[in-house]
Amino acid sequence: MFESTTQIRVRYAETDQMSVVYYGNYAQYFEVGRVESIRQLGLSYKQIEEFGVIMPVVEMNIKFLRSAEYDDLLTVKTSVKELPTNHKIEFHQEVYNEANKLLTVGRIVLYFIDAATKAKTNMPALLKEKLEKFF
Amino acid sequence: MFESTTQIRVRYAETDQMSVVYYGNYAQYFEVGRVESIRQLGLSYKQIEEFGVIMPVVEMNIKFLRSAEYDDLLTVKTSVKELPTNHKIEFHQEVYNEANKLLTVGRIVLYFIDAATKAKTNMPALLKEKLEKFF
Amino acid sequence: MFESTTQIRVRYAETDQMSVVYYGNYAQYFEVGRVESIRQLGLSYKQIEEFGVIMPVVEMNIKFLRSAEYDDLLTVKTSVKELPTNHKIEFHQEVYNEANKLLTVGRIVLYFIDAATKAKTNMPALLKEKLEKFF
Amino acid sequence: MFESTTQIRVRYAETDQMSVVYYGNYAQYFEVGRVESIRQLGLSYKQIEEFGVIMPVVEMNIKFLRSAEYDDLLTVKTSVKELPTNHKIEFHQEVYNEANKLLTVGRIVLYFIDAATKAKTNMPALLKEKLEKFF
Repeated sequence: MFESTTQIRVRYAETDQMSVVYYGNYAQYFEVGRVESIRQLGLSYKQIEEFGVIMPVVEMNIKFLRSAEYDDLLTVKTSVKELPTNHKIEFHQEVYNEANKLLTVGRIVLYFIDAATKAKTNMPALLKEKLEKFF
Repeated sequence: MFESTTQIRVRYAETDQMSVVYYGNYAQYFEVGRVESIRQLGLSYKQIEEFGVIMPVVEMNIKFLRSAEYDDLLTVKTSVKELPTNHKIEFHQEVYNEANKLLTVGRIVLYFIDAATKAKTNMPALLKEKLEKFF
Repeated sequence: MFESTTQIRVRYAETDQMSVVYYGNYAQYFEVGRVESIRQLGLSYKQIEEFGVIMPVVEMNIKFLRSAEYDDLLTVKTSVKELPTNHKIEFHQEVYNEANKLLTVGRIVLYFIDAATKAKTNMPALLKEKLEKFF
Repeated sequence: MFESTTQIRVRYAETDQMSVVYYGNYAQYFEVGRVESIRQLGLSYKQIEEFGVIMPVVEMNIKFLRSAEYDDLLTVKTSVKELPTNHKIEFHQEVYNEANKLLTVGRIVLYFIDAATKAKTNMPALLKEKLEKFF
């Protein structure tokens, strides 16, 4: 299993008039979590796109347990529990607040897509090489 | 079953560098779909908050089948398949493009929460009255 | 002078914990105002990009006079006061609420840029033809 | 003069189909810059709101010189050039990319507003005490 964490400070823009983070903004927090997890592997999502592979999200399931508030320093925990063997990669993600309370749980599935042909493809070799050390 | 539709024009701001709508923005489209479905019942979500009830999202499941593009005039179909009997309401939502292709499917669960006490509560009487005609 | 109006319903996502529209979101409202003004001329900003011209914003000045609130049906008034003669176009934009109170005033300058070469260019002929009737 | 810097990593969500940061998102970057500058003074904007003072933006002027791209690590430089003597505070803000190129320049004016009465008020004493050391 590969696991990483990153921190995000809640912006004023991300709150709504319930005085909590708008539910739709967790998709951005999860995106940041995934991007930083790839950076912690020693490459970047930007490089993956430069290799000609894009990774659109095809499924997102989120449970909202507690609210995040303005200026909270959130911790996003991102894990990959199974090494991808085809065009699919699944991330499990959790958001915690400073009191270490679990706020949100997400399961996000992305495809590896060839940017030129738009066809499904496999995980880029360099990402695979970095990731398989954890399995 | 209660069903309604509304239309949304994709904004430039909502695209990303894949030249499609960023996946996180569908939460906003679904919010607009729910809000307009309540308006079509003859009241407004704003009024519900004025009654002292807020409706936070507790669960969101989205499948992304096809991409929406800049300037697409999307149709959001919003339905409630079961009349709520407790603090929970479930919406089924679909996004279609102008070619009537199904782009995105969502299932969103919200709670009825008393804004003052933050306790779970039942559907406001006025909303129930409007909605139960469809069941 | 060319003038057009369009309407925008404030989304929950666009509010912040001051219970008003977050100041940064007016840039999106202004974008929608400009895009709809071009549509009212009988073409679309999407087509302009398909002609190979992009229109990045190079300057934005906004005065915030009064707040917009959740679910307000705003009117965005967009005007071009001078026919562009070079690579520059200037829009004057105003946002009004349902009580016809002026909320926000903006002056936004965009360039016409050749998408391929990234060089400054002139207004596309088709847009010029549509626009010059108003001057 | 009080000056501070903070860094922001560009999110995928913040790009648009021109493959650069959407112009409207700089308002968020500037907000983060101001919030972090207050934190570097030894208090927080959150505390200021807890003292009963809110700081709405009343004017924003931005010049866009160069584009920011996905995954850029931006530096936001935030300065206050004059100690506020009434209900007004003015921030000068600049965004630089990793090559130290100046991308965006902003001048943002905010008011100190009493959250309860909505009347203009003066800078909270604690903020004044921290800030006046720099003048």
